Amino acid sequence: MNDNHFIRGSIPMTKSEVRAVSLSKLELKRDSILYDVGAGTGSVAIEAALYAEKGHVYAVEQKEEGCRLARQNQEKFGVENLTVLEGIAPQALEGLPAPDRVFIGGSGGKLADILNLAWKKNPLARVVINVIALETLAAVGEVLKSRRWEAEIVSVQVARAKKMGGYHLMQGQNPVYIITIDPAENGGEG
Amino acid sequence: MNDNHFIRGSIPMTKSEVRAVSLSKLELKRDSILYDVGAGTGSVAIEAALYAEKGHVYAVEQKEEGCRLARQNQEKFGVENLTVLEGIAPQALEGLPAPDRVFIGGSGGKLADILNLAWKKNPLARVVINVIALETLAAVGEVLKSRRWEAEIVSVQVARAKKMGGYHLMQGQNPVYIITIDPAENGGEG
Amino acid sequence: MNDNHFIRGSIPMTKSEVRAVSLSKLELKRDSILYDVGAGTGSVAIEAALYAEKGHVYAVEQKEEGCRLARQNQEKFGVENLTVLEGIAPQALEGLPAPDRVFIGGSGGKLADILNLAWKKNPLARVVINVIALETLAAVGEVLKSRRWEAEIVSVQVARAKKMGGYHLMQGQNPVYIITIDPAENGGEG
Amino acid sequence: MNDNHFIRGSIPMTKSEVRAVSLSKLELKRDSILYDVGAGTGSVAIEAALYAEKGHVYAVEQKEEGCRLARQNQEKFGVENLTVLEGIAPQALEGLPAPDRVFIGGSGGKLADILNLAWKKNPLARVVINVIALETLAAVGEVLKSRRWEAEIVSVQVARAKKMGGYHLMQGQNPVYIITIDPAENGGEG
Repeated sequence: MNDNHFIRGSIPMTKSEVRAVSLSKLELKRDSILYDVGAGTGSVAIEAALYAEKGHVYAVEQKEEGCRLARQNQEKFGVENLTVLEGIAPQALEGLPAPDRVFIGGSGGKLADILNLAWKKNPLARVVINVIALETLAAVGEVLKSRRWEAEIVSVQVARAKKMGGYHLMQGQNPVYIITIDPAENGGEG
Repeated sequence: MNDNHFIRGSIPMTKSEVRAVSLSKLELKRDSILYDVGAGTGSVAIEAALYAEKGHVYAVEQKEEGCRLARQNQEKFGVENLTVLEGIAPQALEGLPAPDRVFIGGSGGKLADILNLAWKKNPLARVVINVIALETLAAVGEVLKSRRWEAEIVSVQVARAKKMGGYHLMQGQNPVYIITIDPAENGGEG
Repeated sequence: MNDNHFIRGSIPMTKSEVRAVSLSKLELKRDSILYDVGAGTGSVAIEAALYAEKGHVYAVEQKEEGCRLARQNQEKFGVENLTVLEGIAPQALEGLPAPDRVFIGGSGGKLADILNLAWKKNPLARVVINVIALETLAAVGEVLKSRRWEAEIVSVQVARAKKMGGYHLMQGQNPVYIITIDPAENGGEG
Repeated sequence: MNDNHFIRGSIPMTKSEVRAVSLSKLELKRDSILYDVGAGTGSVAIEAALYAEKGHVYAVEQKEEGCRLARQNQEKFGVENLTVLEGIAPQALEGLPAPDRVFIGGSGGKLADILNLAWKKNPLARVVINVIALETLAAVGEVLKSRRWEAEIVSVQVARAKKMGGYHLMQGQNPVYIITIDPAENGGEG
């Protein structure tokens, strides 16, 4: 979905190309229960909720502005199977139903704790993580190493043409690592 | 959808990340009529047909092996709203119903002719083109210039981790330009 | 050389990584005569002049601010074998000695004319072009096609870590095509 | 320098673009003493030795084939200020004169030990590391964290046009992180 369809504030938003790849990696089902951690303006949550029409999306965001924008976007798209929660993960996730899918757009330095909670609720939950910080990349590596698991790791670097004075100049966007961890492919039990 | 789900031969296949972005740019509707030109193994056509369940996908591919693989994949996924046509575009498209969406994964040097035919059938057809050759990039530029149209032009460069001797090495894939042309955003009339 | 070594204004500067690759592609000799067209702040010209200590660099820049910065940088580095010319190429190049190397960082839409002039003066001049606009990429293609020449074409996309709140975030820079045309490798006569 | 100038075997070689950026980051002096660790075919070592004409390059490579190729290249370029050592770092470095520059193209899992040895010999040695494995990237992060140092971290992704059937197709190369650590910029004492 085009980024322009979403109401945006000063909160950084997952760009449409990275969102498309991330949603594709999630392999959502129509009845999936998805946690969207670090939901920002809710763009991933809303596209996911539109697809998982018989499921539910729980979007956790710690910034008030993010939550407000996510709720505005929810209203704009008329999405009912989405709950926006202001709070910090993993605490904010504790009382929620078990997920079969988890998307982590921001982890606030609590990546391992968030994953542990998600896999305690459902050892087979499929997880997709967007990583822009080298420290988070290392943290993902630690999690995988400690479980002796493999993940699919891709990096995506997008550039976008901008018209200036009759010329189309390619403008680089920030590269993002998109990491997919499926416990089932690692012999199960998250 | 994961590339491994598809039956593949020696035909190059649109990689899953580029396919996800391209399908996102197409903004398919449930009842879309899509032309998939240069369909290869049919990976884009099948994902599109699964989504556009009330529509139809016409996949044109000039290589016999591509058509055979596309039909095998069609059978594997049980997709009925897909017609695989062995032939060369734009000729192979002539007798088909008008499309509202066109995906061009390969144009065999006939890009302008293919676009002219598609927009003659439906002046508002939304077009997404995957470009890997600099010559095709220039050809798209010529089409846009002659119509005084704007397009969205992004390039996507993906790298994928490969495990070798305990290390994850990032392996670069080929960069792809993904170009979206929507006549409606250019004042109509393709 | 680190970008911070140069005096910079509001003029865009070739980034150090792209400059390093471009200078490497030029294969300067100690006595090279180099034209630097669209010299901006003079960063390429100065690094080239420091290397080609027995040669001379002619830096042409149409913006007054660029020329001023280039001259300030020339003074800062104590480079004597550099002439900064305010003017527009190819006209500003006409009276100059024949070059054996040409670097084009900006062509103001006159790429073919600049190349024609350079190769009229020296049919064997080795040329390196930095391209950020798709239109310029197409123009290079036209030049090569009309002469039936081949060039080395690489694209370079750099990202740079930026520290924010204890995290290193990778920030994408704009991708640049670096094109090298050597008449000698094409059977001569530029 | 063009990759084709070097004698190559089955050993992976630092590509010319990455070599150019890495050498630029090293900021060699004419009399530099450089360690090239994981020297492969010696391409970095030879370009460095040609520049540091009053200095010396010590190239350590653990594979016999690499050492043989590096010596063949040394002979081809007539470089005398280069010593190729077959061995494993850091042990192979122990008896050598202190370096003011260190390039690490491959560390065999001994990155921290190599850096400790280099900085024991010269606490101000400037270090440039090429990283292609995520594990090595994490190891660099650990070194920096333990010393509370900052480094310049860039990633470089190159694509190269390949001619196929009249078309120029961009072929992606593997992305490389180029990390520069200068003890002097971190308050000294490596």
